[in-house]
Amino acid sequence: MSQVWNFSAGPAALPPPVLERAQRELLDWNGSGASVMEQSHRGKRFIAMAERVEADLRELLAIPADYAVLFLQGGATQHFAQIPMNLAGEGDSADYVVNGHWGAKAAGEAAPYVRVNVAASSQADNYLRLPPRESWQLDPRAAYVHYTPNETIHGVEYHDVPVVGDVPLVADMSSNILSEPLDVSRFGLIYAGAQKNIGPSGLVLMIVRRDLLERSSRPMARIFRYAEHAAAASMLNTPNTWGWYLAGLTFEWLKEQGGVAAMGERNRAKAEKLYAAIDGSGGYYRNPVDPAARSRMNVPFTLHDSALDADFLKESEAAGLMALKGHKALGGMRASLYNAVPLAAVDALVAFMGDFARRHG
Amino acid sequence: MSQVWNFSAGPAALPPPVLERAQRELLDWNGSGASVMEQSHRGKRFIAMAERVEADLRELLAIPADYAVLFLQGGATQHFAQIPMNLAGEGDSADYVVNGHWGAKAAGEAAPYVRVNVAASSQADNYLRLPPRESWQLDPRAAYVHYTPNETIHGVEYHDVPVVGDVPLVADMSSNILSEPLDVSRFGLIYAGAQKNIGPSGLVLMIVRRDLLERSSRPMARIFRYAEHAAAASMLNTPNTWGWYLAGLTFEWLKEQGGVAAMGERNRAKAEKLYAAIDGSGGYYRNPVDPAARSRMNVPFTLHDSALDADFLKESEAAGLMALKGHKALGGMRASLYNAVPLAAVDALVAFMGDFARRHG
Repeated sequence: MSQVWNFSAGPAALPPPVLERAQRELLDWNGSGASVMEQSHRGKRFIAMAERVEADLRELLAIPADYAVLFLQGGATQHFAQIPMNLAGEGDSADYVVNGHWGAKAAGEAAPYVRVNVAASSQADNYLRLPPRESWQLDPRAAYVHYTPNETIHGVEYHDVPVVGDVPLVADMSSNILSEPLDVSRFGLIYAGAQKNIGPSGLVLMIVRRDLLERSSRPMARIFRYAEHAAAASMLNTPNTWGWYLAGLTFEWLKEQGGVAAMGERNRAKAEKLYAAIDGSGGYYRNPVDPAARSRMNVPFTLHDSALDADFLKESEAAGLMALKGHKALGGMRASLYNAVPLAAVDALVAFMGDFARRHG
Repeated sequence: MSQVWNFSAGPAALPPPVLERAQRELLDWNGSGASVMEQSHRGKRFIAMAERVEADLRELLAIPADYAVLFLQGGATQHFAQIPMNLAGEGDSADYVVNGHWGAKAAGEAAPYVRVNVAASSQADNYLRLPPRESWQLDPRAAYVHYTPNETIHGVEYHDVPVVGDVPLVADMSSNILSEPLDVSRFGLIYAGAQKNIGPSGLVLMIVRRDLLERSSRPMARIFRYAEHAAAASMLNTPNTWGWYLAGLTFEWLKEQGGVAAMGERNRAKAEKLYAAIDGSGGYYRNPVDPAARSRMNVPFTLHDSALDADFLKESEAAGLMALKGHKALGGMRASLYNAVPLAAVDALVAFMGDFARRHG
């Protein structure tokens, strides 16, 4: 096949060396004579791998010892509900800063379990800018403050961690985890669906300060309690073993690439190149987001005439540029530039965009 | 590598042609130029595949049109809790027939959400027989009756579907789904973790009568509501796309093998051969289960002298017989004989057992 560059928002591109290794090992993993998918999660081989994967992640993000790392299921959406179940007592309130589709969804799914206080929202701006920190109406008695550091659909991203005092800060980092260095100690809980910067879908990574695990005494099944998952090293029940394995291959690849510092530089260079092409197109292409809030991970853009959208999609796909169709909330196109998307993919996209503009005037 | 036979209780052996195809297609699925793991679940290619997988399952089990098929996450354990959330109103009770470890766990996880009535239990028999149907104390007003048709740890299995009147029958078929023909219309809800007879872990298959989907009006997050998953064709949020794909390859393989009728015959022959070897060993090997309740899927057995267990495990592994260590509840050994384990694997195990008995007297 000819070269394909995958700009999918998720499930998204994985690093080619990760896929190639998964392919090589698929029938005979680790000398076992069987696939990694056929291994008991309670077996010595799998447990040794699982521990190594956690250690690699701890090294990549310099995760302090008082934080637990969990490998869970259900997608970030399930944890929109499970986080208040675990972090808030009955009658508690929690602050939600809503700066895009996913933040709004997180608040909605939390509502049956906690009094949701929308402390700030940029909905009136169609989520194309961030609510300024000084406008946030935080409640110092809130169980936690939830926000979405990068919004996949609207293409907005915080470039600093907001200061929220002593209330634990909870962040849905599904679309920007591991894309740059991170000071984990600033957060109470970080969670991320794996299918953008980590591995295949069906796995959720969580990093949580251990003292928060015992907060809720409300009745619930053990399977919903993060403290139980932590005590069982994420093997309270059978985990997504393939996802865990793939995440581990990605973490090894990240270490070989120079870690999150190197990825941060690459991701900045990729985004700058694409935004420069959009901004330098004389209005042919346009990104609607406040420049101060532009995402490095997800770049939505429109054509000056939406009647050209269908041609753009057809021709870009024929040129090996995959999954550029934008979300219906913004229309037009979206290029997602996660860790596994190399600068060469952005170069190819930028070249195609210039060529398309010349040909379609 | 030399031939390895995998008797793991789960995650368990997958059919070699399924693994080989997954390996071939891993870098370039369906002519897309990218892996199936890198496809958007909202893309045309993935949706077409997902629909075909459901159609194949409907054909294999002759699922009536008034049943929804769901592809979920969280393992069967999460659904121990989610089933009462969805099928019982506040204050309702549900009947649990407990005939092994997993049935007891299902009742425990349900307790925060429904009044659990243990209608029958074989705990006093250490779960080595089934509670006779005439002993079940069923409540005709119960929201549902829950049981576990095959218990993976204790190796007991129902060989008929119990008659329970008009109350919906709910079955955890994690370890015997698709192992023989099934009359779906006898059940209100069937669910199964994928990692035994379907595919990799991290996927749960559910077959549920549509009229049961709207039963519960209690407050809960949308993500926990089966009706929402059904309305969204299991794409309420990003599903486990790799698991769904692998399940589809398994279903295709099952159809090529002659479907569940052919598997039922094979599974009976495999189990009969192993039980015959155990029963014919003059007491060297022993299966502790009531012969009328013996499982075709999971065969626990002990050696006449447990001091030989370590040698048996070491030598069997060296002979390419993998994962025979029994669960600590029963000790000794356990051979799981799911669909993907061929008769040749049982032949190899029986030959090894005979040889071991001769050598170790």
